[in-house]
Amino acid sequence: MKESEKSRLQALLKKASGWVEPRLGELPESSGGLSRLPSLCRYSLTSGGKRVRPFLVRSSCEAVGGGPGRSIHAACAVEMVHTYSLIHDDLPQMDDDDLRRGLPTLHVKAGVPQAVLGGDLLMVEAFGELARTPLGAGRVSEMLGRLSAAAGPVFLVGGQYMDMNPPRDADRPWVERMILGKTAAMIRVSLELGALAGGAESDLVDGMQGVGDRLGYLFQLTDDILDRSGNTDEMGKRVGKDADHGKANTVSTIGLAEAKALALRLSDEISSELARFEGDWSAVALLARYLPHRRK
Amino acid sequence: MKESEKSRLQALLKKASGWVEPRLGELPESSGGLSRLPSLCRYSLTSGGKRVRPFLVRSSCEAVGGGPGRSIHAACAVEMVHTYSLIHDDLPQMDDDDLRRGLPTLHVKAGVPQAVLGGDLLMVEAFGELARTPLGAGRVSEMLGRLSAAAGPVFLVGGQYMDMNPPRDADRPWVERMILGKTAAMIRVSLELGALAGGAESDLVDGMQGVGDRLGYLFQLTDDILDRSGNTDEMGKRVGKDADHGKANTVSTIGLAEAKALALRLSDEISSELARFEGDWSAVALLARYLPHRRK
Repeated sequence: MKESEKSRLQALLKKASGWVEPRLGELPESSGGLSRLPSLCRYSLTSGGKRVRPFLVRSSCEAVGGGPGRSIHAACAVEMVHTYSLIHDDLPQMDDDDLRRGLPTLHVKAGVPQAVLGGDLLMVEAFGELARTPLGAGRVSEMLGRLSAAAGPVFLVGGQYMDMNPPRDADRPWVERMILGKTAAMIRVSLELGALAGGAESDLVDGMQGVGDRLGYLFQLTDDILDRSGNTDEMGKRVGKDADHGKANTVSTIGLAEAKALALRLSDEISSELARFEGDWSAVALLARYLPHRRK
Repeated sequence: MKESEKSRLQALLKKASGWVEPRLGELPESSGGLSRLPSLCRYSLTSGGKRVRPFLVRSSCEAVGGGPGRSIHAACAVEMVHTYSLIHDDLPQMDDDDLRRGLPTLHVKAGVPQAVLGGDLLMVEAFGELARTPLGAGRVSEMLGRLSAAAGPVFLVGGQYMDMNPPRDADRPWVERMILGKTAAMIRVSLELGALAGGAESDLVDGMQGVGDRLGYLFQLTDDILDRSGNTDEMGKRVGKDADHGKANTVSTIGLAEAKALALRLSDEISSELARFEGDWSAVALLARYLPHRRK
Protein backbone atom coordinates (compact mmCIF):
# COMPACT_ATOMS: atom_id res chain seq x y z
CA MET A 1 0.00 0.00 0.00
CA LYS A 2 1.35 3.39 -1.01
CA GLU A 3 2.10 6.04 1.61
CA SER A 4 -0.24 8.45 -0.22
CA GLU A 5 -3.08 5.95 0.20
CA LYS A 6 -2.29 5.53 3.89
CA SER A 7 -2.42 9.31 4.30
CA ARG A 8 -5.73 9.49 2.46
CA LEU A 9 -7.22 6.83 4.74
CA GLN A 10 -5.89 8.60 7.85
CA ALA A 11 -7.54 11.81 6.65
CA LEU A 12 -10.86 10.02 6.03
CA LEU A 13 -10.77 8.31 9.43
CA LYS A 14 -9.99 11.63 11.09
CA LYS A 15 -12.87 13.29 9.26
CA ALA A 16 -15.32 10.56 10.33
CA SER A 17 -14.04 10.76 13.87
CA GLY A 18 -14.38 14.56 13.96
CA TRP A 19 -17.89 14.16 12.61
CA VAL A 20 -19.10 11.62 15.15
CA GLU A 21 -17.33 12.79 18.35
CA PRO A 22 -19.52 15.85 19.09
CA ARG A 23 -22.72 13.81 18.85
CA LEU A 24 -21.23 10.93 20.90
CA GLY A 25 -20.35 13.52 23.55
CA GLU A 26 -24.07 14.27 23.92
CA LEU A 27 -25.00 10.59 24.41
CA PRO A 28 -26.65 9.00 26.20
CA GLU A 29 -28.94 11.93 26.88
CA SER A 30 -28.81 13.34 30.39
CA SER A 31 -31.05 11.81 33.02
CA GLY A 32 -31.68 15.24 34.53
CA GLY A 33 -29.33 14.72 37.45
CA LEU A 34 -30.98 11.41 38.34
CA SER A 35 -27.79 9.36 38.19
CA ARG A 36 -24.14 9.35 37.21
CA LEU A 37 -24.82 6.67 34.61
CA PRO A 38 -25.00 8.82 31.47
CA SER A 39 -21.69 10.49 32.36
CA LEU A 40 -20.12 7.11 33.17
CA CYS A 41 -21.30 5.84 29.78
CA ARG A 42 -19.79 8.89 28.12
CA TYR A 43 -16.47 8.04 29.79
CA SER A 44 -16.42 4.75 27.91
CA LEU A 45 -18.03 6.12 24.77
CA THR A 46 -15.65 9.03 24.26
CA SER A 47 -12.37 7.52 25.39
CA GLY A 48 -10.71 7.69 22.01
CA GLY A 49 -11.72 4.66 19.98
CA LYS A 50 -10.65 4.57 16.35
CA ARG A 51 -14.30 4.97 15.26
CA VAL A 52 -13.93 2.36 12.55
CA ARG A 53 -17.63 1.50 12.68
CA PRO A 54 -18.85 5.11 12.36
CA PHE A 55 -16.35 5.52 9.50
CA LEU A 56 -17.94 2.50 7.79
CA VAL A 57 -21.48 3.79 8.33
CA ARG A 58 -20.60 7.18 6.89
CA SER A 59 -18.55 5.76 3.99
CA SER A 60 -21.30 3.30 3.08
CA CYS A 61 -23.91 6.06 3.15
CA GLU A 62 -21.74 8.28 0.95
CA ALA A 63 -20.95 5.37 -1.38
CA VAL A 64 -24.61 5.19 -2.40
CA GLY A 65 -24.94 8.98 -2.61
CA GLY A 66 -26.31 9.96 0.83
CA GLY A 67 -25.10 12.99 2.78
CA PRO A 68 -23.62 12.50 6.28
CA GLY A 69 -26.66 14.00 8.06
CA ARG A 70 -28.66 10.91 7.12
CA SER A 71 -26.28 8.48 8.82
CA ILE A 72 -25.00 10.29 11.94
CA HIS A 73 -27.50 8.62 14.28
CA ALA A 74 -26.78 5.17 12.83
CA ALA A 75 -23.04 5.82 13.26
CA CYS A 76 -23.55 6.70 16.93
CA ALA A 77 -25.92 3.77 17.51
CA VAL A 78 -23.41 1.26 16.16
CA GLU A 79 -20.62 2.73 18.29
CA MET A 80 -22.89 2.59 21.35
CA VAL A 81 -23.68 -1.11 20.81
CA HIS A 82 -19.98 -1.77 20.26
CA THR A 83 -19.09 0.09 23.47
CA TYR A 84 -21.77 -1.69 25.52
CA SER A 85 -20.36 -5.03 24.36
CA LEU A 86 -16.83 -3.99 25.39
CA ILE A 87 -18.02 -2.86 28.84
CA HIS A 88 -19.81 -6.16 29.56
CA ASP A 89 -16.99 -8.21 28.00
CA ASP A 90 -14.41 -6.54 30.22
CA LEU A 91 -16.27 -7.41 33.46
CA PRO A 92 -14.28 -9.41 36.05
CA GLN A 93 -16.39 -12.52 35.61
CA MET A 94 -16.24 -12.25 31.83
CA ASP A 95 -12.85 -11.43 30.17
CA ASP A 96 -11.64 -9.55 33.26
CA ASP A 97 -9.86 -6.70 31.47
CA ASP A 98 -8.72 -3.64 33.38
CA LEU A 99 -7.45 -1.54 30.49
CA ARG A 100 -9.30 -0.42 27.38
CA ARG A 101 -8.24 2.26 24.89
CA GLY A 102 -5.41 3.09 27.28
CA LEU A 103 -7.75 3.88 30.21
CA PRO A 104 -9.13 1.91 33.17
CA THR A 105 -12.20 -0.07 32.15
CA LEU A 106 -15.55 1.13 33.48
CA HIS A 107 -15.87 -1.44 36.28
CA VAL A 108 -12.36 -0.51 37.49
CA LYS A 109 -13.26 3.16 37.46
CA ALA A 110 -16.79 2.98 38.84
CA GLY A 111 -17.58 -0.52 40.12
CA VAL A 112 -19.23 -3.62 38.69
CA PRO A 113 -22.89 -2.60 39.22
CA GLN A 114 -22.25 0.66 37.37
CA ALA A 115 -20.59 -1.20 34.53
CA VAL A 116 -23.46 -3.69 34.21
CA LEU A 117 -26.07 -0.90 34.21
CA GLY A 118 -23.91 1.39 32.05
CA GLY A 119 -23.68 -1.30 29.39
CA ASP A 120 -27.43 -1.91 29.61
CA LEU A 121 -28.06 1.79 29.22
CA LEU A 122 -25.83 2.14 26.16
CA MET A 123 -27.65 -0.71 24.45
CA VAL A 124 -31.12 0.69 25.15
CA GLU A 125 -30.04 4.15 24.09
CA ALA A 126 -28.47 2.85 20.88
CA PHE A 127 -31.95 1.90 19.69
CA GLY A 128 -33.31 5.27 20.79
CA GLU A 129 -30.52 7.05 18.93
CA LEU A 130 -31.02 5.02 15.74
CA ALA A 131 -34.75 5.81 15.89
CA ARG A 132 -33.83 9.52 15.57
CA THR A 133 -32.70 8.96 11.96
CA PRO A 134 -34.57 11.63 9.94
CA LEU A 135 -35.99 9.25 7.32
CA GLY A 136 -39.34 7.54 6.75
CA ALA A 137 -40.70 5.21 9.42
CA GLY A 138 -40.48 2.15 7.15
CA ARG A 139 -36.79 2.66 6.51
CA VAL A 140 -36.01 3.43 10.15
CA SER A 141 -37.89 0.28 11.21
CA GLU A 142 -35.79 -1.79 8.83
CA MET A 143 -32.62 -0.26 10.28
CA LEU A 144 -33.79 -1.00 13.85
CA GLY A 145 -34.57 -4.61 12.89
CA ARG A 146 -31.13 -5.08 11.35
CA LEU A 147 -29.34 -3.61 14.38
CA SER A 148 -31.38 -5.82 16.69
CA ALA A 149 -30.52 -8.92 14.62
CA ALA A 150 -26.80 -8.06 14.52
CA ALA A 151 -26.72 -7.53 18.29
CA GLY A 152 -28.77 -10.66 19.02
CA PRO A 153 -28.34 -14.38 19.72
CA VAL A 154 -27.13 -15.45 16.30
CA PHE A 155 -24.52 -12.71 16.08
CA LEU A 156 -23.01 -10.37 18.70
CA VAL A 157 -24.34 -11.93 21.91
CA GLY A 158 -24.07 -15.43 20.44
CA GLY A 159 -20.44 -14.84 19.49
CA GLN A 160 -19.67 -13.53 22.97
CA TYR A 161 -21.25 -16.63 24.44
CA MET A 162 -19.09 -18.87 22.23
CA ASP A 163 -16.01 -16.89 23.25
CA MET A 164 -16.86 -17.43 26.95
CA ASN A 165 -17.65 -21.13 26.48
CA PRO A 166 -15.10 -22.58 24.04
CA PRO A 167 -15.04 -26.32 23.44
CA ARG A 168 -11.84 -28.14 24.43
CA ASP A 169 -10.98 -28.74 20.78
CA ALA A 170 -11.89 -25.34 19.30
CA ASP A 171 -10.84 -25.53 15.65
CA ARG A 172 -10.76 -23.16 12.72
CA PRO A 173 -14.48 -23.52 11.75
CA TRP A 174 -15.46 -22.90 15.38
CA VAL A 175 -13.26 -19.77 15.54
CA GLU A 176 -14.67 -18.52 12.24
CA ARG A 177 -18.25 -18.92 13.47
CA MET A 178 -17.39 -17.20 16.74
CA ILE A 179 -15.89 -14.21 14.87
CA LEU A 180 -18.89 -14.00 12.55
CA GLY A 181 -20.89 -13.15 15.66
CA LYS A 182 -18.49 -11.40 17.97
CA THR A 183 -16.80 -9.07 15.48
CA ALA A 184 -18.16 -9.35 11.96
CA ALA A 185 -21.83 -8.72 12.77
CA MET A 186 -21.24 -5.13 13.91
CA ILE A 187 -18.88 -4.40 11.01
CA ARG A 188 -21.38 -5.81 8.54
CA VAL A 189 -24.34 -3.98 10.04
CA SER A 190 -22.34 -0.72 9.89
CA LEU A 191 -22.21 -1.12 6.10
CA GLU A 192 -25.87 -2.13 5.97
CA LEU A 193 -27.15 0.77 8.06
CA GLY A 194 -25.00 3.28 6.17
CA ALA A 195 -26.30 2.07 2.81
CA LEU A 196 -29.92 2.09 4.04
CA ALA A 197 -29.48 5.60 5.44
CA GLY A 198 -28.04 6.67 2.09
CA GLY A 199 -31.13 5.45 0.25
CA ALA A 200 -30.08 1.98 -0.97
CA GLU A 201 -32.73 -0.68 -1.50
CA SER A 202 -32.88 -3.79 0.73
CA ASP A 203 -31.70 -6.03 -2.14
CA LEU A 204 -28.46 -4.15 -2.62
CA VAL A 205 -27.94 -4.16 1.14
CA ASP A 206 -28.53 -7.92 1.38
CA GLY A 207 -26.01 -8.39 -1.42
CA MET A 208 -23.36 -6.71 0.73
CA GLN A 209 -23.58 -9.11 3.66
CA GLY A 210 -20.83 -11.38 2.34
CA VAL A 211 -18.31 -8.60 1.92
CA GLY A 212 -19.28 -7.16 5.30
CA ASP A 213 -18.66 -10.50 6.99
CA ARG A 214 -15.29 -10.88 5.26
CA LEU A 215 -14.26 -7.36 6.25
CA GLY A 216 -15.21 -8.17 9.86
CA TYR A 217 -13.20 -11.39 9.72
CA LEU A 218 -10.19 -9.50 8.33
CA PHE A 219 -10.53 -6.98 11.14
CA GLN A 220 -10.45 -9.72 13.80
CA LEU A 221 -7.65 -11.56 12.02
CA THR A 222 -5.41 -8.49 12.09
CA ASP A 223 -6.44 -7.89 15.72
CA ASP A 224 -5.34 -11.42 16.61
CA ILE A 225 -2.06 -10.92 14.71
CA LEU A 226 -1.43 -7.79 16.77
CA ASP A 227 -2.44 -9.58 19.98
CA ARG A 228 0.40 -12.00 19.19
CA SER A 229 2.96 -9.52 17.92
CA GLY A 230 1.93 -6.00 19.09
CA ASN A 231 2.65 -4.32 22.43
CA THR A 232 0.42 -3.00 25.20
CA ASP A 233 1.54 0.63 24.94
CA GLU A 234 0.72 0.94 21.25
CA MET A 235 -2.54 -1.01 21.48
CA GLY A 236 -3.95 0.66 24.62
CA LYS A 237 -5.09 -2.74 25.90
CA ARG A 238 -3.33 -5.83 27.19
CA VAL A 239 -1.86 -7.98 24.42
CA GLY A 240 -0.99 -11.68 24.38
CA LYS A 241 -4.07 -12.46 26.46
CA ASP A 242 -5.49 -15.16 24.21
CA ALA A 243 -2.18 -17.04 24.20
CA ASP A 244 -1.77 -16.56 27.98
CA HIS A 245 -5.21 -18.07 28.58
CA GLY A 246 -4.82 -20.81 25.96
CA LYS A 247 -7.79 -19.32 24.06
CA ALA A 248 -8.30 -20.34 20.45
CA ASN A 249 -8.24 -17.51 17.92
CA THR A 250 -7.44 -17.18 14.23
CA VAL A 251 -3.67 -17.10 14.80
CA SER A 252 -3.62 -20.06 17.19
CA THR A 253 -5.59 -22.24 14.78
CA ILE A 254 -3.68 -21.46 11.58
CA GLY A 255 -0.32 -20.05 12.74
CA LEU A 256 1.10 -16.53 12.49
CA ALA A 257 2.63 -16.85 9.01
CA GLU A 258 -0.53 -18.25 7.46
CA ALA A 259 -2.63 -15.63 9.29
CA LYS A 260 -0.53 -12.82 7.76
CA ALA A 261 -0.78 -14.36 4.28
CA LEU A 262 -4.54 -14.84 4.69
CA ALA A 263 -4.96 -11.22 5.73
CA LEU A 264 -3.30 -10.00 2.53
CA ARG A 265 -5.38 -12.38 0.41
CA LEU A 266 -8.68 -11.40 2.07
CA SER A 267 -7.78 -7.74 1.79
CA ASP A 268 -7.35 -8.08 -1.99
CA GLU A 269 -10.57 -10.07 -2.36
CA ILE A 270 -12.60 -7.51 -0.43
CA SER A 271 -11.36 -4.54 -2.44
CA SER A 272 -12.02 -6.32 -5.76
CA GLU A 273 -15.49 -7.27 -4.59
CA LEU A 274 -16.30 -3.72 -3.48
CA ALA A 275 -15.25 -2.40 -6.89
CA ARG A 276 -18.10 -4.39 -8.42
CA PHE A 277 -20.82 -2.71 -6.33
CA GLU A 278 -22.82 0.21 -7.61
CA GLY A 279 -21.53 3.51 -6.20
CA ASP A 280 -18.11 4.69 -5.02
CA TRP A 281 -16.85 2.26 -2.35
CA SER A 282 -13.23 3.42 -2.50
CA ALA A 283 -13.10 4.63 1.13
CA VAL A 284 -14.18 1.21 2.45
CA ALA A 285 -11.76 -0.52 0.05
CA LEU A 286 -8.95 1.69 1.35
CA LEU A 287 -9.61 0.45 4.89
CA ALA A 288 -9.63 -3.17 3.70
CA ARG A 289 -6.29 -2.68 1.96
CA TYR A 290 -4.81 -0.98 5.03
CA LEU A 291 -5.83 -3.58 7.64
CA PRO A 292 -3.00 -6.09 6.97
CA HIS A 293 -0.55 -3.21 7.58
CA ARG A 294 -2.16 -1.82 10.75
CA ARG A 295 0.16 -1.32 13.73
CA LYS A 296 -2.56 -0.87 16.37
CA MET B 1 -63.39 -6.07 47.21
CA LYS B 2 -66.04 -8.72 46.55
CA GLU B 3 -65.10 -12.37 46.10
CA SER B 4 -66.87 -12.35 42.72
CA GLU B 5 -64.62 -9.51 41.58
CA LYS B 6 -61.51 -11.35 42.78
CA SER B 7 -62.62 -14.41 40.81
CA ARG B 8 -63.23 -12.31 37.72
CA LEU B 9 -59.73 -10.81 37.97
CA GLN B 10 -58.19 -14.26 38.50
CA ALA B 11 -59.96 -15.46 35.36
CA LEU B 12 -58.72 -12.44 33.36
CA LEU B 13 -55.13 -12.88 34.59
CA LYS B 14 -55.29 -16.58 33.74
CA LYS B 15 -56.60 -15.78 30.28
CA ALA B 16 -53.80 -13.26 29.64
CA SER B 17 -51.25 -15.69 30.95
CA GLY B 18 -52.57 -18.53 28.76
CA TRP B 19 -52.44 -16.13 25.81
CA VAL B 20 -48.86 -14.97 26.30
CA GLU B 21 -47.16 -18.18 27.50
CA PRO B 22 -47.03 -20.02 24.15
CA ARG B 23 -45.39 -17.07 22.42
CA LEU B 24 -42.96 -16.49 25.33
CA GLY B 25 -42.00 -20.17 25.02
CA GLU B 26 -40.76 -19.44 21.48
CA LEU B 27 -38.60 -16.50 22.59
CA PRO B 28 -35.90 -15.52 22.13
CA GLU B 29 -35.73 -17.20 18.75
CA SER B 30 -33.32 -20.11 18.45
CA SER B 31 -29.73 -19.38 17.54
CA GLY B 32 -29.61 -22.52 15.38
CA GLY B 33 -27.66 -24.51 17.95
CA LEU B 34 -25.05 -21.78 18.29
CA SER B 35 -25.39 -21.38 22.04
CA ARG B 36 -27.39 -22.32 25.10
CA LEU B 37 -28.33 -18.68 25.65
CA PRO B 38 -31.83 -18.70 24.12
CA SER B 39 -32.79 -21.73 26.19
CA LEU B 40 -31.28 -20.16 29.33
CA CYS B 41 -33.30 -17.02 28.64
CA ARG B 42 -36.43 -19.12 28.24
CA TYR B 43 -35.72 -20.64 31.68
CA SER B 44 -36.04 -17.18 33.20
CA LEU B 45 -38.77 -16.01 30.85
CA THR B 46 -41.13 -18.95 31.37
CA SER B 47 -40.60 -19.66 35.06
CA GLY B 48 -44.11 -18.76 36.09
CA GLY B 49 -44.32 -15.01 36.55
CA LYS B 50 -47.75 -13.54 37.20
CA ARG B 51 -47.68 -11.84 33.77
CA VAL B 52 -49.10 -8.62 35.18
CA ARG B 53 -47.44 -6.55 32.44
CA PRO B 54 -48.75 -8.68 29.54
CA PHE B 55 -52.17 -8.55 31.22
CA LEU B 56 -51.94 -4.74 31.24
CA VAL B 57 -50.84 -4.59 27.59
CA ARG B 58 -53.72 -6.81 26.51
CA SER B 59 -56.31 -5.09 28.72
CA SER B 60 -55.23 -1.66 27.54
CA CYS B 61 -55.42 -2.75 23.91
CA GLU B 62 -58.90 -4.22 24.45
CA ALA B 63 -60.01 -1.13 26.39
CA VAL B 64 -59.63 0.99 23.25
CA GLY B 65 -61.21 -1.67 21.04
CA GLY B 66 -58.19 -3.60 19.67
CA GLY B 67 -58.11 -7.40 19.35
CA PRO B 68 -55.39 -9.38 21.17
CA GLY B 69 -53.47 -10.21 17.97
CA ARG B 70 -52.41 -6.58 17.73
CA SER B 71 -50.75 -6.52 21.16
CA ILE B 72 -49.19 -9.98 21.62
CA HIS B 73 -45.70 -8.89 20.52
CA ALA B 74 -45.82 -5.79 22.76
CA ALA B 75 -46.92 -8.00 25.67
CA CYS B 76 -43.95 -10.31 25.12
CA ALA B 77 -41.52 -7.41 24.61
CA VAL B 78 -42.49 -5.81 27.92
CA GLU B 79 -42.16 -9.14 29.76
CA MET B 80 -38.72 -9.64 28.16
CA VAL B 81 -37.47 -6.23 29.30
CA HIS B 82 -38.89 -6.92 32.78
CA THR B 83 -37.15 -10.32 32.88
CA TYR B 84 -33.81 -8.91 31.65
CA SER B 85 -33.94 -6.34 34.45
CA LEU B 86 -34.61 -9.06 37.04
CA ILE B 87 -31.69 -11.18 35.76
CA HIS B 88 -29.21 -8.31 35.95
CA ASP B 89 -30.63 -7.07 39.26
CA ASP B 90 -30.23 -10.50 40.84
CA LEU B 91 -26.50 -10.73 39.97
CA PRO B 92 -24.11 -11.29 42.91
CA GLN B 93 -22.58 -7.84 42.65
CA MET B 94 -25.98 -6.20 42.30
CA ASP B 95 -28.83 -7.34 44.63
CA ASP B 96 -27.32 -10.83 45.00
CA ASP B 97 -30.55 -12.83 44.91
CA ASP B 98 -30.51 -16.60 44.55
CA LEU B 99 -34.23 -17.24 44.32
CA ARG B 100 -36.78 -15.80 41.90
CA ARG B 101 -40.30 -17.03 41.20
CA GLY B 102 -39.48 -20.01 43.43
CA LEU B 103 -36.52 -21.16 41.29
CA PRO B 104 -32.74 -20.57 41.37
CA THR B 105 -31.85 -17.30 39.64
CA LEU B 106 -30.09 -17.57 36.28
CA HIS B 107 -26.57 -16.89 37.54
CA VAL B 108 -27.02 -19.60 40.21
CA LYS B 109 -28.24 -22.05 37.58
CA ALA B 110 -25.83 -21.20 34.76
CA GLY B 111 -23.08 -18.85 35.97
CA VAL B 112 -22.56 -15.09 35.98
CA PRO B 113 -21.32 -14.68 32.37
CA GLN B 114 -24.40 -16.51 31.12
CA ALA B 115 -26.65 -14.31 33.23
CA VAL B 116 -25.00 -11.09 31.99
CA LEU B 117 -25.27 -12.20 28.35
CA GLY B 118 -28.73 -13.73 28.84
CA GLY B 119 -30.02 -10.40 30.17
CA ASP B 120 -28.38 -8.55 27.28
CA LEU B 121 -29.98 -10.95 24.83
CA LEU B 122 -33.46 -10.56 26.29
CA MET B 123 -33.22 -6.79 26.02
CA VAL B 124 -32.05 -6.84 22.39
CA GLU B 125 -34.69 -9.38 21.48
CA ALA B 126 -37.43 -7.39 23.19
CA PHE B 127 -36.96 -4.67 20.58
CA GLY B 128 -36.92 -7.27 17.79
CA GLU B 129 -40.12 -8.81 19.14
CA LEU B 130 -41.91 -5.46 19.44
CA ALA B 131 -40.87 -4.65 15.86
CA ARG B 132 -42.92 -7.70 14.74
CA THR B 133 -46.16 -5.90 15.67
CA PRO B 134 -48.36 -6.17 12.56
CA LEU B 135 -49.21 -2.47 12.31
CA GLY B 136 -47.93 0.46 10.24
CA ALA B 137 -44.27 1.45 10.49
CA GLY B 138 -45.09 4.85 12.04
CA ARG B 139 -47.05 3.29 14.88
CA VAL B 140 -44.46 0.57 15.47
CA SER B 141 -41.70 3.20 15.57
CA GLU B 142 -43.60 5.14 18.19
CA MET B 143 -43.98 1.97 20.26
CA LEU B 144 -40.25 1.22 19.95
CA GLY B 145 -39.39 4.77 21.03
CA ARG B 146 -41.65 4.54 24.07
CA LEU B 147 -40.20 1.17 25.13
CA SER B 148 -36.68 2.52 24.71
CA ALA B 149 -37.49 5.60 26.81
CA ALA B 150 -39.13 3.51 29.57
CA ALA B 151 -36.13 1.16 29.71
CA GLY B 152 -33.58 4.00 29.59
CA PRO B 153 -31.64 6.33 31.90
CA VAL B 154 -34.54 8.41 33.16
CA PHE B 155 -36.67 5.39 34.01
CA LEU B 156 -35.83 1.66 34.37
CA VAL B 157 -32.03 1.77 34.28
CA GLY B 158 -31.98 5.09 36.15
CA GLY B 159 -34.21 3.65 38.89
CA GLN B 160 -31.99 0.60 39.21
CA TYR B 161 -28.98 2.87 39.54
CA MET B 162 -30.70 4.83 42.33
CA ASP B 163 -31.60 1.58 44.06
CA MET B 164 -27.92 0.49 43.93
CA ASN B 165 -26.61 3.86 45.07
CA PRO B 166 -28.95 5.19 47.76
CA PRO B 167 -28.00 8.34 49.66
CA ARG B 168 -27.46 7.95 53.41
CA ASP B 169 -30.64 9.92 54.13
CA ALA B 170 -32.98 8.40 51.53
CA ASP B 171 -36.37 9.97 52.19
CA ARG B 172 -39.86 9.61 50.80
CA PRO B 173 -39.35 11.82 47.69
CA TRP B 174 -36.16 9.92 46.87
CA VAL B 175 -37.97 6.58 47.19
CA GLU B 176 -40.85 7.84 45.06
CA ARG B 177 -38.49 8.94 42.29
CA MET B 178 -36.64 5.63 42.45
CA ILE B 179 -39.89 3.69 42.07
CA LEU B 180 -41.02 5.89 39.18
CA GLY B 181 -38.05 4.47 37.30
CA LYS B 182 -37.51 1.02 38.70
CA THR B 183 -41.12 -0.19 38.75
CA ALA B 184 -43.61 2.33 37.42
CA ALA B 185 -41.98 2.90 34.01
CA MET B 186 -42.59 -0.65 32.80
CA ILE B 187 -46.15 -0.70 34.22
CA ARG B 188 -46.90 2.62 32.55
CA VAL B 189 -45.38 1.64 29.21
CA SER B 190 -47.45 -1.56 29.27
CA LEU B 191 -50.59 0.58 29.26
CA GLU B 192 -49.11 2.89 26.61
CA LEU B 193 -48.06 0.12 24.24
CA GLY B 194 -51.37 -1.70 24.63
CA ALA B 195 -53.36 1.43 23.84
CA LEU B 196 -51.16 2.25 20.83
CA ALA B 197 -51.49 -1.33 19.56
CA GLY B 198 -55.24 -1.04 19.95
CA GLY B 199 -55.35 2.07 17.76
CA ALA B 200 -55.36 4.92 20.31
CA GLU B 201 -53.90 8.27 19.35
CA SER B 202 -50.71 9.59 20.98
CA ASP B 203 -52.65 12.28 22.88
CA LEU B 204 -54.87 9.78 24.66
CA VAL B 205 -51.80 7.69 25.43
CA ASP B 206 -49.91 10.69 26.86
CA GLY B 207 -52.93 11.46 29.01
CA MET B 208 -52.63 8.03 30.62
CA GLN B 209 -49.08 8.48 31.91
CA GLY B 210 -50.20 9.79 35.29
CA VAL B 211 -52.49 6.87 36.02
CA GLY B 212 -49.83 4.44 34.75
CA ASP B 213 -47.26 5.90 37.12
CA ARG B 214 -49.67 5.72 40.05
CA LEU B 215 -50.55 2.11 39.25
CA GLY B 216 -46.82 1.31 39.15
CA TYR B 217 -46.32 3.03 42.49
CA LEU B 218 -49.22 1.09 43.99
CA PHE B 219 -47.69 -2.12 42.68
CA GLN B 220 -44.34 -1.39 44.38
CA LEU B 221 -46.05 -0.19 47.54
CA THR B 222 -47.92 -3.49 47.91
CA ASP B 223 -44.71 -5.36 47.05
CA ASP B 224 -42.89 -3.53 49.85
CA ILE B 225 -45.78 -4.26 52.24
CA LEU B 226 -45.45 -7.96 51.40
CA ASP B 227 -41.66 -7.78 51.72
CA ARG B 228 -42.29 -6.66 55.29
CA SER B 229 -45.18 -8.97 56.12
CA GLY B 230 -45.22 -11.84 53.58
CA ASN B 231 -43.24 -15.08 53.64
CA THR B 232 -40.67 -16.60 51.28
CA ASP B 233 -42.70 -19.70 50.40
CA GLU B 234 -45.74 -17.75 49.24
CA MET B 235 -43.72 -15.06 47.45
CA GLY B 236 -41.25 -17.35 45.64
CA LYS B 237 -38.44 -14.93 46.49
CA ARG B 238 -36.66 -13.93 49.68
CA VAL B 239 -38.64 -11.47 51.80
CA GLY B 240 -37.50 -8.97 54.41
CA LYS B 241 -34.40 -8.19 52.35
CA ASP B 242 -34.82 -4.42 52.29
CA ALA B 243 -35.14 -4.30 56.07
CA ASP B 244 -32.20 -6.72 56.52
CA HIS B 245 -30.00 -4.49 54.39
CA GLY B 246 -31.31 -1.23 55.86
CA LYS B 247 -32.58 -0.23 52.41
CA ALA B 248 -35.10 2.56 52.17
CA ASN B 249 -38.42 1.64 50.56
CA THR B 250 -42.00 2.91 50.75
CA VAL B 251 -42.73 1.06 53.98
CA SER B 252 -39.52 2.11 55.75
CA THR B 253 -40.11 5.79 54.95
CA ILE B 254 -43.80 6.01 55.92
CA GLY B 255 -44.41 3.00 58.17
CA LEU B 256 -46.50 -0.14 57.59
CA ALA B 257 -49.85 1.23 58.76
CA GLU B 258 -49.61 4.37 56.63
CA ALA B 259 -48.41 2.27 53.67
CA LYS B 260 -51.49 0.07 53.90
CA ALA B 261 -53.80 3.08 54.16
CA LEU B 262 -52.06 4.75 51.22
CA ALA B 263 -52.45 1.60 49.13
CA LEU B 264 -56.23 1.62 49.65
CA ARG B 265 -56.46 5.34 48.87
CA LEU B 266 -54.35 5.07 45.70
CA SER B 267 -56.31 2.06 44.59
CA ASP B 268 -59.58 4.03 44.80
CA GLU B 269 -58.08 7.03 43.01
CA ILE B 270 -56.77 4.91 40.16
CA SER B 271 -60.06 3.15 39.53
CA SER B 272 -62.01 6.45 39.58
CA GLU B 273 -59.48 7.97 37.19
CA LEU B 274 -59.69 5.02 34.79
CA ALA B 275 -63.47 5.31 34.72
CA ARG B 276 -63.10 8.76 33.16
CA PHE B 277 -61.08 7.50 30.16
CA GLU B 278 -62.72 6.70 26.86
CA GLY B 279 -63.21 2.95 26.41
CA ASP B 280 -63.76 0.09 28.85
CA TRP B 281 -60.92 0.10 31.39
CA SER B 282 -62.67 -2.16 33.90
CA ALA B 283 -60.06 -4.96 33.72
CA VAL B 284 -57.23 -2.57 34.65
CA ALA B 285 -59.39 -1.01 37.37
CA LEU B 286 -60.06 -4.48 38.78
CA LEU B 287 -56.31 -5.04 39.16
CA ALA B 288 -55.90 -1.66 40.88
CA ARG B 289 -58.69 -2.51 43.33
CA TYR B 290 -57.17 -5.94 44.02
CA LEU B 291 -53.58 -4.85 44.69
CA PRO B 292 -54.04 -3.72 48.33
CA HIS B 293 -55.44 -7.21 49.03
CA ARG B 294 -52.75 -9.23 47.25
CA ARG B 295 -51.10 -12.03 49.20
CA LYS B 296 -48.15 -12.62 46.87
